[in-house]
Formats: sequence, structure tokens, C-alpha cells
Amino acid sequence: MAKAKTWTLTDVKRNRYVEELFLGHDELGIPDCTIAKRRLSGGLADGIDLVSINNGELSFSVLPTRGMGIWKGSFRGVPLGWKSPINGPVHPNLVNLQERGGLGWLYGFDELMCRCGLDSMGAPGKDVVLDNNGNKSEVDLTLHGKIANLPASKVEIEADPETKAVTVTGEVEESAMFCPGLKLKTRISTTPLSNRLKIEDEIINLKGVPSEMEILYHCNFGEPFLGEGSRLLAPVKEMAPRDGHAAKGVQTYDVYQGPTPGYTEQVFFYTLHADPLSGKTISALKNKAGDRAIAVRYSPEQLPHFTQWKNTIPINDGYVTGLEPGTAYPNPKQTERERGRVKMIPAGGSLKYELDIEVYTGEAEVKKLEGEIRAISGGRLSKIHSQPNPKF
Amino acid sequence: MAKAKTWTLTDVKRNRYVEELFLGHDELGIPDCTIAKRRLSGGLADGIDLVSINNGELSFSVLPTRGMGIWKGSFRGVPLGWKSPINGPVHPNLVNLQERGGLGWLYGFDELMCRCGLDSMGAPGKDVVLDNNGNKSEVDLTLHGKIANLPASKVEIEADPETKAVTVTGEVEESAMFCPGLKLKTRISTTPLSNRLKIEDEIINLKGVPSEMEILYHCNFGEPFLGEGSRLLAPVKEMAPRDGHAAKGVQTYDVYQGPTPGYTEQVFFYTLHADPLSGKTISALKNKAGDRAIAVRYSPEQLPHFTQWKNTIPINDGYVTGLEPGTAYPNPKQTERERGRVKMIPAGGSLKYELDIEVYTGEAEVKKLEGEIRAISGGRLSKIHSQPNPKF
Amino acid sequence: MAKAKTWTLTDVKRNRYVEELFLGHDELGIPDCTIAKRRLSGGLADGIDLVSINNGELSFSVLPTRGMGIWKGSFRGVPLGWKSPINGPVHPNLVNLQERGGLGWLYGFDELMCRCGLDSMGAPGKDVVLDNNGNKSEVDLTLHGKIANLPASKVEIEADPETKAVTVTGEVEESAMFCPGLKLKTRISTTPLSNRLKIEDEIINLKGVPSEMEILYHCNFGEPFLGEGSRLLAPVKEMAPRDGHAAKGVQTYDVYQGPTPGYTEQVFFYTLHADPLSGKTISALKNKAGDRAIAVRYSPEQLPHFTQWKNTIPINDGYVTGLEPGTAYPNPKQTERERGRVKMIPAGGSLKYELDIEVYTGEAEVKKLEGEIRAISGGRLSKIHSQPNPKF
Repeated sequence: MAKAKTWTLTDVKRNRYVEELFLGHDELGIPDCTIAKRRLSGGLADGIDLVSINNGELSFSVLPTRGMGIWKGSFRGVPLGWKSPINGPVHPNLVNLQERGGLGWLYGFDELMCRCGLDSMGAPGKDVVLDNNGNKSEVDLTLHGKIANLPASKVEIEADPETKAVTVTGEVEESAMFCPGLKLKTRISTTPLSNRLKIEDEIINLKGVPSEMEILYHCNFGEPFLGEGSRLLAPVKEMAPRDGHAAKGVQTYDVYQGPTPGYTEQVFFYTLHADPLSGKTISALKNKAGDRAIAVRYSPEQLPHFTQWKNTIPINDGYVTGLEPGTAYPNPKQTERERGRVKMIPAGGSLKYELDIEVYTGEAEVKKLEGEIRAISGGRLSKIHSQPNPKF
Repeated sequence: MAKAKTWTLTDVKRNRYVEELFLGHDELGIPDCTIAKRRLSGGLADGIDLVSINNGELSFSVLPTRGMGIWKGSFRGVPLGWKSPINGPVHPNLVNLQERGGLGWLYGFDELMCRCGLDSMGAPGKDVVLDNNGNKSEVDLTLHGKIANLPASKVEIEADPETKAVTVTGEVEESAMFCPGLKLKTRISTTPLSNRLKIEDEIINLKGVPSEMEILYHCNFGEPFLGEGSRLLAPVKEMAPRDGHAAKGVQTYDVYQGPTPGYTEQVFFYTLHADPLSGKTISALKNKAGDRAIAVRYSPEQLPHFTQWKNTIPINDGYVTGLEPGTAYPNPKQTERERGRVKMIPAGGSLKYELDIEVYTGEAEVKKLEGEIRAISGGRLSKIHSQPNPKF
Repeated sequence: MAKAKTWTLTDVKRNRYVEELFLGHDELGIPDCTIAKRRLSGGLADGIDLVSINNGELSFSVLPTRGMGIWKGSFRGVPLGWKSPINGPVHPNLVNLQERGGLGWLYGFDELMCRCGLDSMGAPGKDVVLDNNGNKSEVDLTLHGKIANLPASKVEIEADPETKAVTVTGEVEESAMFCPGLKLKTRISTTPLSNRLKIEDEIINLKGVPSEMEILYHCNFGEPFLGEGSRLLAPVKEMAPRDGHAAKGVQTYDVYQGPTPGYTEQVFFYTLHADPLSGKTISALKNKAGDRAIAVRYSPEQLPHFTQWKNTIPINDGYVTGLEPGTAYPNPKQTERERGRVKMIPAGGSLKYELDIEVYTGEAEVKKLEGEIRAISGGRLSKIHSQPNPKF
């Protein structure tokens, strides 16, 4: 059995760093696949490391410098992702999370997929933490936490001749003395000609004491998957609008508008049915013509709380929808803690999360996906709340 | 007709970046002119891009990394600019605008000319903005806004054999989702052996909704133009001191002291007369001997509000005066909004601003400038308020 | 008499910067000594300059990018320093001092020795400063001030064939208009096969007006010097616990626990006796076996206030003790000002501080050190307060 080949791109502990690298399928030993690593220069991107993976059909880029998020992608020439009103990717050096009343995270936000967390995520809000003296101290938590603005300390490429998988691995620490100490270990992989990229995360509590944790996978899709008449596909178990404003749109929660000046975001909170055999669920965005869909597949046991973010504002302002599986909803952390949705990890312990992003093109493929999602529901009912519900 | 030659230094979208470049007059095709581009390393300047233009008489450097500000200059060997108490230029990575009660901007401030704006400028203060939910949210605006601490996403050199102009062009975006979206497009140019550099700015509202905008050109001059007995020359239409402290100096508003320990800045707000034909005005700083002057020339229709900042503190603390044409006065944005001085740009619309900085040496040249400024007034009266006036 | 050789690593004013350099003993002209300079890439360390000095027995690394702190060291293969829960060194670009209620400094803290100061140090707290208008303005001072997160503007290597000293010199400015203007000039040196590194600092008030100043040398030691049964050795003149929590540990102030889950830091404030002849004092950490000790030697006239930080939390959380001579105690600056412990430096004036860090191995050497510390006390009494004392 052949062993996987590995290439180290970054290893701060061992003082290793590769500025530029290209691996063709010969070097990888994997047909159809290539990997390119560059360091960007100039503008807001100056100093960002970018790793681009291409499997012959699907290509996507990983940002080690932004917490191993996934920046852009394309499938058979069709762009995934969306058009953020920033000229990214944006180096964390230039993001001040405390800006604009704790919304500074937005100044770096343009990814196809970024993680929110790990100590906290969701809307900004006050929280009480213990300081170095063990005293309660009030702090301002900023939007969506720190992890998307932390550079990875270790990045490697793996090519496994057995499984044909090419993988980018990364480690990111969100840690400091007297502060939470959480480490993300991620494996982001694909296989030749696949329509899928797989994210496998482990979140480790580095501390000698138990630690809180929140994570949300902020998966963001724009044109051409999103457009007027696009639909959310999901095996809905229960849903409630986030607030009174979203409640106004509850009748059409699964249908999207085109770019709409003056539109204000509507957010819906869900639980989804899981397939009894695989334990997995799927939520997807399908275009109006029914010939394009993009899906996220994961286990509701790991990520029980699903958030749909409808943000059909004008194209230049950021026309996008977020399909966001998480350990909690993106309410302020205090709210999530009260509702029992903040995870605890024991000292030295860890939690694992998996998420696939899949692309479907052609009516036949899209219909097959729809069938699969229907089968997950298996005739089970959806409970739709017309008003915000304290359970969510 | 020969076409202008262009060289791209930075283009984040196309992943182009030139670390170092020297263009002599042969390459530019423009006599007497050279352009050099470097990337600085070490200290607070680490990673800063610097573009130096020399026309044979006048030389100046542009900072793409600091919002296309103008760092230093010299004319026939005489330094323009001033001596800031920092060892700059300072990379925005190391500037926290929220520091010291919203005065963090000062930790990067050492330019000959930097722009204040674009969403806001002036003194720090509370403001109310709409958040992602369309709800009113109170934020702390920081001193002089963001634009001087944002790197350009696109930078080019142009050499036009027709006009003999050498130009540095730049684009800087102050933009994020749910935040203002303003783009600065600037052209900074000079011609062989000229005593003048020309700034041509266009500010574009990238958003699908109308947007507020403020800009102020913070032009800063020290020795040898500033000294004991130096004078402000300007076709004053109306003037009022900013506050009670400035009011004490209203009798000598146009005369400068030498470096003075214990001096506290005095600020005066003006409107200036414009030349009826050209629509332009001039404000200038003349030394005591009358053989050196530095002037800013612009249209009061574009920039109706002129601020004079007298800051004759000791040399090492930052002996300087600011001649500052703007769309508003540098009061907190809320004040300027109440007084009707915050601009609105329609969705996709833009506004244009032009500003020349000119250097005069020798008594004859300086006298000619004085005559030109007198001619702009054309005998029209100046109204000097001895106390702060609510109109300003 | 041979002149010292010098090599410039960084000089922002003269636009000089050396990315990588190795100097062997031949080049230095000093036996047994080598110096290596590198620039780190990747992770939180991206862009950090590191200067490593080795004298044949003792090696240590200096961080010009982090205010000329001392990152790590080792003596005869035994590591000095400690294990911080961050993957450092951390570039100041990625440290937001205002984070987590003013405790953001912790996100960069992993040095063997870092300076706290220079305008302020100690716990976060409100303070009142004068703004540009000479008006009182309330600001939030952040933990331990700015100096450890400011890059040096000038760095040189010196090798002196006369004294056999190899020295890294650095200059760091903590300065901006309308803000304090303090410059640190440091010389960090050692000699062949010595067990000692010497820090010689000068702090200059760059301003034209008198200026406040605080400095504390945060010297941090972990395993194998720190362990269960390790002891503080110091010629104690007077001591008081910082707070009620520390008071509980006053009986065992000089003895350390092993890594202890749930431990909360205990801090003790001291004055120390000085040797009447040399004017110096020593505080040291000795391991239980009595065969290893690490000491700081300095003049209590320069640094009258000594703080002991006991932080015997689990290894992964940051098992460490701080021996911290300072011009004041690390209380909020307002407290220190009230108690008369904030220094004033006249306009253009300066203050000097010296500190040696020394390593002792083997019972004989350690006993000799103990004897030297006993001799400093010379039978003079120690006054131990069992409760916090308003004097400290």
C-alpha cells in the first residue's frame, strides 16, 4: 500500500515556509489534480497565502491566512461564491474586529465558506468572562469571533495514491494566556473529477480546564446559483423566523428575490431531518431553471442548528445567501448560552465536524439531488413558525 | 498622436504586483522626469509601497499603502512637508484608529498631504448608522476616518508624450458589506521642471443606495516655509475661529509664531473668494523673508470649506500648519450633518475634486503669487468673526 | 585599541534593511560567539525579525519587531523562558491591545523578557490625558502599554574586540503628535562563554515638554527552573500581597507549586535591599534540587519596585513565574500616579536602566548565588505584610 505524499507549506514551530509551489498531477501522483500555492502582494491582500486546488472539474482556493477558509471556487467554469463589496481576500492585519460597534469582521468578509467561532460567534454583544484574577469581567464580543482572522501555524498538502484524495491540512490556534485556548485542525480535500469538496475539522481545547466553543460554517452563494426564483431545498423539521422583519417573509422563506434595492436581510432558524441510515442531512440552493444547485451535506448530530441568511440586496452591495450549519444560531453568545446551545469541551478534549460542499449541474443531476433531499424527509412533517420562537 | 505609456505596479484583481521599478526619462519618454518604486522594510514602515516622482525640479513620493497620500517632497533641494514625531511612513497594519479615545489616526500621521474621509472625517464622535438589520446603531467615529490607512488595490504609472505629464494613478476602496462603499480614484501628476503637482480625485459610491461622503485635503507644511513671521495668504471671504481658544488668536490669524513650548493648536474656519473666470482659489503659506511660498489651488465650488490649522508647537513635537480645503469642516460628522455640509452621492454616482500644490521660490515669484491671490479677492471684503460662529 | 565592528540590520531613516545575516566568530572577531538574523514567515510570526546570539554557552534571541524583547534562550542546552499558550512570536500587526476589555496584550505575550511601558503599564484602567486642544480627555489604558508591540526603527550588531562583548542595539519610538513621545535605546549584550546577558536601556523624552514614564521588566521563567518546590531568592526589605487572594498565599510566598488546575495567579509587591557597595540587588528562581537558578540583577535605585507573579497554572495554560523589577508596580497607572510612582522625564531628558539575566547550574554555583543574595541582606530584616498595604 503506497503511503500518502506530503508537502509542508508552513510550519512556524519548525521555521518552515514555502512562498510559492506548483504540484502537477505527476508530482501529486493523482490524475487530473493540481495544487498551486502563492503569496499575494499589494492592496488589502498583501501577505495572504493562497492554496488553489483543482481536481479537473472543481477548483477552489483555501486561505491559510484567514483561518483556513475557502475563498472562491468554480465548477466546470461556473463560479461558486459571491461578489462581496470588498477587493479581497483581506489580510487579518487590516481587520479591526472592534470597528463599527463590533462589526469590523465585515471588512474581511468575502469567502465562499468561512468559519465563525471558536470561542464565540454570532451577533456582537456583551459577555462576562473570568480575567487573570478569576474575577468576572465584562467584555464586548465582536461579530462572528476571531477564527476567520487568524493565520494557520501549520499547513500541509497531502496526496494519497490509495484514495486519490488531495488534501490541504491546516492548524489554527485561537489561544492566549488567561483567554480561551482552542485549536482548529482541518483537512480540506477533493478527489479527481469530483463535484465535491470535503471539510473535516477537529476542534481541540488546549487548556487544562473545560472550555466553551461555538462554530458556524458560513457558506455563501451568489450568482448564478442565486437569482430571482432560486429556492432553498432542505428537509425542514422546524423553522422560525429570527425576528419580526423575517416573519414578514415567512410565507416565501424558500424562494429568493433578485437583487433588490432597499432589501433588508431576512434570517430563518431551522432544525433539519437527518437520513436515518447515514445520519446526514443536505441543504441546497437551486436556481430557477432547475439546472444548477449547490449543496452542503453534514450531520445534524454534529451541527444541529441551521441558519438561512437571505440577503438579496443589489449585486454591488453583496447579493448573497448564506446556508449556515452550526453548533448554535448566530445570536449573541449570551442568548445561545441561556438556550443551552454553547458547547463545552473538556480539558484536552476535542469535537469533530464534517461538511461537504457539492455542485450539481444539469437538470438530471439537480432532480436527483431534490429526490435525495425529499427522501431524507421521508414524508416527515415540517413545522413552520410564523413568528419568532423563543426556542430558536 | 502618441499614446500614453502605462506600467502597472499593483493590481490585486489581476494578481499583479511590482516590488521595485525605476523608470528613467528614456523609458518614460518624458524629459527630466524619473519615477522609482520601492517596498520599504523594517520598523513601522515594513511593507509600505513608495512611489517617488521627480520632474527635475520638484520631487515627491506617493504612498499607495496609505490611501495614495503624498508623503514627502522637495523643490530645488528645499524640503516640503514637516517633521512629525513619528518615524514614518507608518503601515496601516500598525495603526489602530480606535486607540486613545478615537485618536489612533495620529499614530500614522506624518504626510505632506493626506486625505481625511471618506465616510467621515474630523474630530471623533458618536454617530448613528444603520446596521445589517436596518436598525439604528450607535458607533464611534474615529479621527479623520479610514481612507489614509487603506492600501490601494490598483496602482499605475502613466507617461503621456503629448502633455508631457507623468502620473501615478491609484484606486482605494473604503467598502464592506453593510458598511459604506466608496472608491477613491486618484491621478497625481506633474510635468517636466514644473513647480506644481496636481491631484485629480474621483469618489464613487459603489453601493446600490445613496451614500454620505466627506473629504478634506490635509496639506501640512513645516520649516522652512513655516517659521516665525510666516503668513497665510488667502482671498478670505469669511472666517471664524473654531473655539474660544482660537478666538484669542483671531487678531493674528494670518501670522505664525516660531516653535513655542506650551502652544495649543488654533484652528480657523474659512470660506474663500474664487476667481470669477477660472472658478479657482488659492491659499498659501509665505515665509517671513517673502522668498518662499507653498500654495494649494482648487475650486471652492468643489471644496467650499477651508480650514487653517496653526500648530506652532516645538519642532520635535510637530511644528506644522495645515491648509485644509474640504467638503466640510473637521468638526464631528454629526455637527457637519446638522449644518448641511455632508455630501450625498447617488447610487453609482461620483464626485470630482482637484487640488494643485505649488511651490514658489524667490521674491519675484512670491510677489507674483501674492498679486494673484489679491486679484482673486478683487477688492471684495473679508468678514472676520471674532468669536466662534454657529454657521461654521 | 581596536574599534568595535558594527553591522546595520534595520535603519528606517536611511532605508536599510537586512533580511538574513549570519556572523561567525571570525567575522565578529569574538571567540565562541555567533549571531544570526532571520525574518520569520507564516502564521502569527509572519514578518517578525529575529536576532539570535550565541556565546558558546548561553544563547538567546531578540525580537526587534516586538520592542527589542528577548524571546527565548537556552544555557548549556537547558531552555530558559516558558511555554506560553500561543504559537509565537506574534507580530504586533496581529495584536489588538484593546481586545478583551483592554487585555489584548496577552495575545502577543510569550517572551522570556518583555518590557511593559513606556507611557503606561500595568492593569488596564481609565486615565485622563490632554487632547490636541489641551482639554482633558478620558482614555482607556490597555494592559502593559505599547512598547512590546512596537517594531524597532534601528537595529545594529556590535562586536567589540576590546571587551569581547557582542551587542544588539535597537531604537524603538513610542510616539505620535499630541501623544507621548518616548524613545527606547537598548543595548543587549553578552561575552564569550558567559552565563549572563546584559540589558542597558535609555529612555528619552522626545517631546518639548516634560513627560510621564513607566517601565517594568517582565522576566518570565518556566520549567525546568520553575517546578514544585522551586523558591524565590531575594533580599526582601518589605513585601505585601497585591490583594486578598494573594494574602492567602503570603505564608508560602517564596515557594512554588507544580502545575495546578484551577490555580489563580498570586502577585506580591516588594522592595529589596541593595548591596551597599555595588548598589545592586538580585532576585532569583531556584529549583527544588538546588542545582539550577536563574537570576535578575539590577539597581533598586533605578528600579525600586519589584513584583513577583506566581502563575502556577497547568503547563498548557502557561505555567510561569514573573520576576519583574520596575519603576512602579503593575497597578493601573492612576493608582501608581497617586502613590507617586510614575516617573517624570524633562523635555529632551532621559533615564537609564540596567538589568542582567544570569543562569546558574550545578549545586556549587547555585549555593554561591544564594550566599551572594544573603550577603546583600547582610542581616537586615524583612518586613512581611500579611495583608495588602496601601503603600504598595
